[in-house]
Amino acid sequence: MAKVAILGFGVVGSGVAEVIRRNGEHIGQKLHASVELKYILDRRDFPDSPFADLVIHDFSVIENDPEVEVVVETIGGAGAAKEFTLRALKAGKSVVTSNKELVAKHGYELMKLAQEHNVSYLYEASVGGGIPIIRPLKQCLAANEITEICGILNGTTNYILTRMIRAGLSFDAALKEAQQNGYAEADPTADVEGHDACRKICILASLAFGRHIYPEQVPTEGISGVSLADVAYADSCGRKIKLLGRAILGADGKVRAFVAPHLVSGEAPLAGVEDVFNAITVKGNAIGDVMFYGRGAGKLPTASAVVADVMDAVSRRDRPKFMDWGPGGKEVTLPPEDVKSPWYVRAKATAEALRSAVGEVTVLARAGAPEGETAVLAPAMTRGELEEKLSGIGVQTLFRVLED
Amino acid sequence: MAKVAILGFGVVGSGVAEVIRRNGEHIGQKLHASVELKYILDRRDFPDSPFADLVIHDFSVIENDPEVEVVVETIGGAGAAKEFTLRALKAGKSVVTSNKELVAKHGYELMKLAQEHNVSYLYEASVGGGIPIIRPLKQCLAANEITEICGILNGTTNYILTRMIRAGLSFDAALKEAQQNGYAEADPTADVEGHDACRKICILASLAFGRHIYPEQVPTEGISGVSLADVAYADSCGRKIKLLGRAILGADGKVRAFVAPHLVSGEAPLAGVEDVFNAITVKGNAIGDVMFYGRGAGKLPTASAVVADVMDAVSRRDRPKFMDWGPGGKEVTLPPEDVKSPWYVRAKATAEALRSAVGEVTVLARAGAPEGETAVLAPAMTRGELEEKLSGIGVQTLFRVLED
Repeated sequence: MAKVAILGFGVVGSGVAEVIRRNGEHIGQKLHASVELKYILDRRDFPDSPFADLVIHDFSVIENDPEVEVVVETIGGAGAAKEFTLRALKAGKSVVTSNKELVAKHGYELMKLAQEHNVSYLYEASVGGGIPIIRPLKQCLAANEITEICGILNGTTNYILTRMIRAGLSFDAALKEAQQNGYAEADPTADVEGHDACRKICILASLAFGRHIYPEQVPTEGISGVSLADVAYADSCGRKIKLLGRAILGADGKVRAFVAPHLVSGEAPLAGVEDVFNAITVKGNAIGDVMFYGRGAGKLPTASAVVADVMDAVSRRDRPKFMDWGPGGKEVTLPPEDVKSPWYVRAKATAEALRSAVGEVTVLARAGAPEGETAVLAPAMTRGELEEKLSGIGVQTLFRVLED
Repeated sequence: MAKVAILGFGVVGSGVAEVIRRNGEHIGQKLHASVELKYILDRRDFPDSPFADLVIHDFSVIENDPEVEVVVETIGGAGAAKEFTLRALKAGKSVVTSNKELVAKHGYELMKLAQEHNVSYLYEASVGGGIPIIRPLKQCLAANEITEICGILNGTTNYILTRMIRAGLSFDAALKEAQQNGYAEADPTADVEGHDACRKICILASLAFGRHIYPEQVPTEGISGVSLADVAYADSCGRKIKLLGRAILGADGKVRAFVAPHLVSGEAPLAGVEDVFNAITVKGNAIGDVMFYGRGAGKLPTASAVVADVMDAVSRRDRPKFMDWGPGGKEVTLPPEDVKSPWYVRAKATAEALRSAVGEVTVLARAGAPEGETAVLAPAMTRGELEEKLSGIGVQTLFRVLED
């Protein structure tokens, strides 16, 4: 018998309660031990919930109850969530989280604390919702050296881009629709500006490359600069615009990680990832490319990943696993300035001007382009090289093109 | 220090040797123990191989060497591979295999024997080459009830179908090309007739549903009946023909598993899986659909999956995991006769005749269709219902349409 407390009875937290209740028998069989929900911590009361009688408001009840073995943290953010996580670990309880912000900012420190107290700190649900990615990535890592991770990591922005591409909605209209459908929050900044994707690529890169990589080491560009003009030009050359989180291991052992919109070939597996789906590709020196695909968010998928971690924490109670990566540091990363790629450039300039500035380019066309607007695909080079060549030209958009 | 012996120095076996040598340092760090190759068993000698001095011809050397902790079986088939696996397990050695035929036919019995001798029998590489699927599926299983598995499980047939679709090659020409490229064997029967896919869906279904499902319980149809006419009709309605292995859990708790060509919507993630790639979708009651994608075969991808299992066997030496599923039996499965789906029908008949036989149909068109040939999409029904309706009509092809 393992008793569990959930912190935060929002979408994911209530999903966890539901999955434990719904699949309890099945979980018990798999685990050879039953998992029982004892407390739900929230500021609010939920008198109409079937879990109403489990709701409490004081964390110290959980902290001081020796029966509670696993604490599920689904509060989000790095405030109360951090404080309660620290206190739970210090009280000798394993913590399972879906909170990417906390793991991206403090994962190393929290794993270290878990180690000191001989408990687990698990975070499968922090990336890719219900897609099993953290544990498979460890498995890929077993016999491979990972060289690159690249993914569509945020369902909200992928939904917005999909609606722009398929329905011709403007960014603003697509965002509004996403909000109406519950796919985007009232304040969509964290999603739209790429912060959410940034946190997730930090977690994946830390795991893949073995050192903590912090959000501030990852230059991040969101999708608010993507226009329907760019979508149309991309379409004209058989490509789709996708917000990618990437982390590349250089030959110098340093990691270049960044988040930015990219043009992706329509033939590439990532191009087929639509709506709120996520996908993560992992490149290993023996395995080649593998991809993991599924719903990147949502109540039950994310909750099922949390519950899988709860089960893992319980089954490993005698020998928890601790450090998935080592400490961070400035020396771990380099800015992606030296990463070469082909580029998509849209500018107030003639094709001639762009050609003479950049060299051999492919000129793109779209219906209804205003006079003086030109878009091209430019050959592979670094961002610095490109910007130098384009100096003096009125650049409107600059996106990397993902190479096959 | 863990010493390993490889049985069979073919494509996968030599890849395992290469991965152990190439990533040895990395593996040692991850495992906190080094892995060293001690023997390679093969009938042949390999005087020019860097591993020449490890090659032996007598299995009893391995069997009687207490230093050998893990035996890697990459012989294939259910003859010598089975005998050596039994002997290795009885000698207290863990066995890691890429041999889907052996696992599909004797997995339960071999896991049981491993349990009796307190060692591991691991088979990640038997499905999906380097794609991590066996362990992630266990993870999906943790908090989900799996209801369906559906996959493109054979790279050879997927390559042939891709070449038929994209290059307009006939089945025979595409098969020949696959043989020339090393993607198909001189005797392509096991791939082309679906037996390989059948073994893999048996393994996945046994794991997902907890009872051994044997190949003879899985009706299997290959791709030799797929014609360019069918490819063209499928294309005309935005679909692609794919060979799918499927296993569906009915409300009665019984599993319907089968292998057959299907029409798949061009929008579906599985439609984008081309050439020798594999993909496996898993449907769970909490997780929704997740998909795992990558190279389904090939020396290094498959070898890296084997080596990950070797590492797992070594790290679990004190407490191996045993039974992934229970015993099989006639009561575990039902034939897929009651599985309803829409159908693709090509026949020597008029559209009128098909409509009056089957009901509301969508008539398809292709360039150059001979007079009297008609292809339609028919509504969802069982195979038996369809065949009864079509009695007396000269049916040429009958494929299921995968519903979204």
